Amino acid sequence: MAKKPKRAGRLVDLAARLVAAPYGHFSLTAFAEAYGAAKSSISEDLALIKDVLEASGRGTLRTFPGAAGGVRYEPWLPRPEAEAFGEALRAEMERPERLLAGGFVYITDLLGRPDVLSRFGRLVATAYGGEEIDWILTVETKGIPLATAVGFWLNRPVAVARKASQITEGSVVTVSYVSGTTRRIQTMSLSRRAIPSGARVLIVDDFLRGGGTIRGLWSLLDEFQATAAASVVLVETPPGAPRLVDGVRAAVRLTRLDAEAGVLVAEPGDLMHDYRAALLKIEGELKKEDAALVDPEGRPDDGAADGKRRERRDAVD
Amino acid sequence: MAKKPKRAGRLVDLAARLVAAPYGHFSLTAFAEAYGAAKSSISEDLALIKDVLEASGRGTLRTFPGAAGGVRYEPWLPRPEAEAFGEALRAEMERPERLLAGGFVYITDLLGRPDVLSRFGRLVATAYGGEEIDWILTVETKGIPLATAVGFWLNRPVAVARKASQITEGSVVTVSYVSGTTRRIQTMSLSRRAIPSGARVLIVDDFLRGGGTIRGLWSLLDEFQATAAASVVLVETPPGAPRLVDGVRAAVRLTRLDAEAGVLVAEPGDLMHDYRAALLKIEGELKKEDAALVDPEGRPDDGAADGKRRERRDAVD
Repeated sequence: MAKKPKRAGRLVDLAARLVAAPYGHFSLTAFAEAYGAAKSSISEDLALIKDVLEASGRGTLRTFPGAAGGVRYEPWLPRPEAEAFGEALRAEMERPERLLAGGFVYITDLLGRPDVLSRFGRLVATAYGGEEIDWILTVETKGIPLATAVGFWLNRPVAVARKASQITEGSVVTVSYVSGTTRRIQTMSLSRRAIPSGARVLIVDDFLRGGGTIRGLWSLLDEFQATAAASVVLVETPPGAPRLVDGVRAAVRLTRLDAEAGVLVAEPGDLMHDYRAALLKIEGELKKEDAALVDPEGRPDDGAADGKRRERRDAVD
Repeated sequence: MAKKPKRAGRLVDLAARLVAAPYGHFSLTAFAEAYGAAKSSISEDLALIKDVLEASGRGTLRTFPGAAGGVRYEPWLPRPEAEAFGEALRAEMERPERLLAGGFVYITDLLGRPDVLSRFGRLVATAYGGEEIDWILTVETKGIPLATAVGFWLNRPVAVARKASQITEGSVVTVSYVSGTTRRIQTMSLSRRAIPSGARVLIVDDFLRGGGTIRGLWSLLDEFQATAAASVVLVETPPGAPRLVDGVRAAVRLTRLDAEAGVLVAEPGDLMHDYRAALLKIEGELKKEDAALVDPEGRPDDGAADGKRRERRDAVD
């Protein structure tokens, strides 16, 4: 009886530490020392936490074997929360008071809301957490909160391109790009120190219209011998002209923007597809893991491993 | 024996939900329904989670009684992590390669690092979580990641003042301010929709030099009939002239910036004092809570309540 509360406290403490630092690396040895427990006990705790997180769709724990071994929390946005977020974004984007003069759309409020940023960050982390990503890149000003949120949930550094060259950035690389909407030539700069050569980069921005800004960011990456692993935005709007880029994923898409009539029509964007595809892949891997707990021929073993897993799963029902 | 794993899983799930959404409001009734458990069981779980979080210095749970009752997680940065963060910031700021032409200091890398942002956010959340704060305000560009992090850990919306008036902001309020360093007159604008009238606002920025920008933000707040609850920055540098503002708190302070000699000297800033003061106040309240578990005259009761609390505390040792 004396050991039970001890384990409960350790489980809560472990879960709190891991969940507060997504993609943060924790050493099993350090955990064992901190709790004065055997590594095998910590491993059992982690297995239970992993099952609970997976069962609730909040993420998983990935363990790394070996001397430098450890564990990290990989966050997912639970499916019901993702669907609700997609629907909430759609409804938000259809509010006619968002229409501004010149056919612009007001979304500044959304970019300042922690609930929107947290859900967007976890949506992107779920969709691209399986990809090799070293860095996040955005461009000032309104992409920054989104990129910061993605950086938090993926635990990756964020670089910010500036539209005007800044003295506080040191030496910079500057590229010219053509706005897809206005066809004007603009420049953006990135500090030489901002991104290491050869990095795989996730591009994050607020709006996709003509695609000129994203193309500018891609050509900036070229200058750093870096590559775009994926490009995501919060909102996609109908381009006035043929779009300059392909493959950019938006959380929500405006399909109609009629400033005269005061009508905005929106639907979930392609980012939702990437999210669902990533989740299906993850679920497939989990099933394979479950299958690996029975014998290699696929026949059930004595049931011990399966029973153990089921018992852990039962812990959340 | 059958109930034990069930409770362990529920504890982990509850902890994961609460910790992933700082200052998010959760209903006890919804928890009880989700787990098919009695509200009293949920309350016991929350009491254990609260004790574990407090014992590790990671925060506390605050419960709200009544029909609209619920619980929320209030994050703290643990003291050892705060001290290590202060020391790491000091060491970072003293790296001579941060010196740029014109006596500027390169800190863009720090503003993109999720570990720095998470610690800064929790430091500020610990220091001012007890204050009445409705909104966060910053000014583009480099204050935005810091403000976004603070917004996440305090679950408050973030407004961003723009240095040039933007068509995508709708109607704006514009104020002029004098740069404390260059003495030039500049303007900043904030969307009319950005902050509600009468709000109590936490101001967040990257640098404090002459204080002109912060004073500009204060006069912007005046226009919204809003008040500054506190003003914080990451780095304070020696002002070239008498500073235009008082009471701004920095996480780290440059005491010497010698561009000729290539020398930077730094020390922990006043924000660390506010953090420690807030933590002492919190610890005092926890002691009072503990004392309230014995009888009002301060004599120990039959030991049941005290023993119960001690048992929960033991859960993390």
